[in-house]
Amino acid sequence: MIKLDFDKTGGLLPVVVQDYETNEVLMLAFMNETAWEATLSTNKATYYSRSRKKLWVKGESSGNVQNVKEIRIDCDDDTILLKVEQVGGAACHMGYKSCFFRKVEDGSLTVMGKPVFDPKEVYGETSH
Amino acid sequence: MIKLDFDKTGGLLPVVVQDYETNEVLMLAFMNETAWEATLSTNKATYYSRSRKKLWVKGESSGNVQNVKEIRIDCDDDTILLKVEQVGGAACHMGYKSCFFRKVEDGSLTVMGKPVFDPKEVYGETSH
Repeated sequence: MIKLDFDKTGGLLPVVVQDYETNEVLMLAFMNETAWEATLSTNKATYYSRSRKKLWVKGESSGNVQNVKEIRIDCDDDTILLKVEQVGGAACHMGYKSCFFRKVEDGSLTVMGKPVFDPKEVYGETSH
Repeated sequence: MIKLDFDKTGGLLPVVVQDYETNEVLMLAFMNETAWEATLSTNKATYYSRSRKKLWVKGESSGNVQNVKEIRIDCDDDTILLKVEQVGGAACHMGYKSCFFRKVEDGSLTVMGKPVFDPKEVYGETSH
């Protein structure tokens, strides 16, 4: 088993998630050791939700899971990079392919591109 | 000024750093609000070093700075993505282009590619 440095940062490591075909960065999430081991054994990206304080299989509610194609580890053993196939085409809960759909331009944020889905249809009116 | 959610995570936000031409992820670092404002005003990637507990202009000792070409913000205002021109060609203190030079294969880590520079020549024998 590959041992990562979960102790250094209070048990949670940042995870950079890229589209395995285009290298577009889709999102950033966190894993604790249980999420890391679940990701390795299931090949579905599994994170630790800091807001809900529990394991979170990405796409468990929407069906838009992330199939893991490649895993990289950084030089300090404290950051994970996943290259994934994003089922449904969108990683962001706001319906965009990437969570990084806003660009800094002239001191403000410009939305780039269009949503792939309507969050209200996927998650309902009030939650995400 | 664009306001990010520095309060949510104790003042430090993760920053994903990509090569602006290839979209390869080079490293992950952290910014506090001062580092964020310095990056915006100087256009050189400036981070907060968690180990040294101070601002860190990437490349200040080696000359291998990161010229910022594009900045993206995620949907929660709590993660930054920089697309940079990495002067010197390598972002990793171990001499590799990317800090993510190791891949998970069959339960262990395989080094991908070769270093761009020898860290001993750039930083000296004992430090990085």
